[in-house]
Amino acid sequence: MTETTHGLFVSFEGIDGSGKSTQARRLGAALEAAGRDVVLTREPGGSPGAEEIRRLVLEGDPDRWSAETEILLFTAARRDHLERTIAPALAAGKVVVCDRFADSTRVYQGVSRGDLRGRVDRLHAEMIGREPDLTILIDMDPGQGLSRALGRQGTEERFESFGEGLQHKMRDAFLALAREFPARFRVIDGNRDIDAVATDVLAAVETELA
Amino acid sequence: MTETTHGLFVSFEGIDGSGKSTQARRLGAALEAAGRDVVLTREPGGSPGAEEIRRLVLEGDPDRWSAETEILLFTAARRDHLERTIAPALAAGKVVVCDRFADSTRVYQGVSRGDLRGRVDRLHAEMIGREPDLTILIDMDPGQGLSRALGRQGTEERFESFGEGLQHKMRDAFLALAREFPARFRVIDGNRDIDAVATDVLAAVETELA
Repeated sequence: MTETTHGLFVSFEGIDGSGKSTQARRLGAALEAAGRDVVLTREPGGSPGAEEIRRLVLEGDPDRWSAETEILLFTAARRDHLERTIAPALAAGKVVVCDRFADSTRVYQGVSRGDLRGRVDRLHAEMIGREPDLTILIDMDPGQGLSRALGRQGTEERFESFGEGLQHKMRDAFLALAREFPARFRVIDGNRDIDAVATDVLAAVETELA
Repeated sequence: MTETTHGLFVSFEGIDGSGKSTQARRLGAALEAAGRDVVLTREPGGSPGAEEIRRLVLEGDPDRWSAETEILLFTAARRDHLERTIAPALAAGKVVVCDRFADSTRVYQGVSRGDLRGRVDRLHAEMIGREPDLTILIDMDPGQGLSRALGRQGTEERFESFGEGLQHKMRDAFLALAREFPARFRVIDGNRDIDAVATDVLAAVETELA
């Protein structure tokens, strides 16, 4: 038995308004209360360079980048985030809790902007090369998720302005990913009160940490 | 015989201080004087989005991006440049004269920052997928090129601060590319006065246009 420390990489995924950002924060706080070292981060962004790339992608005219250029920019941001934030934290034995990771790119770029899933996967294999240890999919009724998302204010609304039809497609795409990668995905029903969802999330993560 | 108009895509390559930017401008002016529609452009950059990515890559701490992230950012900029500037100009029958293209990434990222040539090529094949019709390599003695480059002032000096030993490696790498892709490369001796070099460059391009 080796005593090498190693962390756990947990990502949250789900449609806009699913509550995944709230749940990521709740999980981080619960793990810290239990004495774990936690790094709470998000994509796109999560490192100084990746945050600059995030601004380049998300601000300005939604048509300023083609889907292909956008995939390259997201992959550049992810590479920087992985090198500068995620990998060092995992090497130090910390739990990394990340609001969105590559699955969001697979769904958003693959479904909403033409079928680019194959291209996303090849870029990922070449330049990123790792997945989270555990991916929590907060599954949410698209109508409810949309009204939550639209109830927020923000300058980065481009991914939340596609309407309910697209939200249904996104939900289906996330559930399909969960079936494709059953070893790392846990699907949690987000159509309940926040505390009930948080309890299930924490239980799923504690099983992995045990 | 079809009458489809189509342009010509000419790139200039060479070590820093080789005079390629001067020769690109000279070529553009000579072709315009001869009645051709010319688009003079450069990399990284060449479209509004790609110029923003250029600033992200070339400004600030030279170590702010890993070689891998830098390749992704350069490829994103190149994709935007190709879509927004180069491809529309070629479709309109224009001559595109570009100061650096993918060969510069092959040489700079492949030689100066670890052997990443294979990764550069796979990204290129996936996301760019085309080469110039003609690549003019201005071949220059590295000592002479370096003293020219260091005589200039500029804020984007990071690629020109590597010293003469690296310039020799770069020159060898460009010449190796010319041997690898003989159909599109023309090697022109840059160790002569500017007019003599410009005459040879124009002759090479006019042969392609004839």
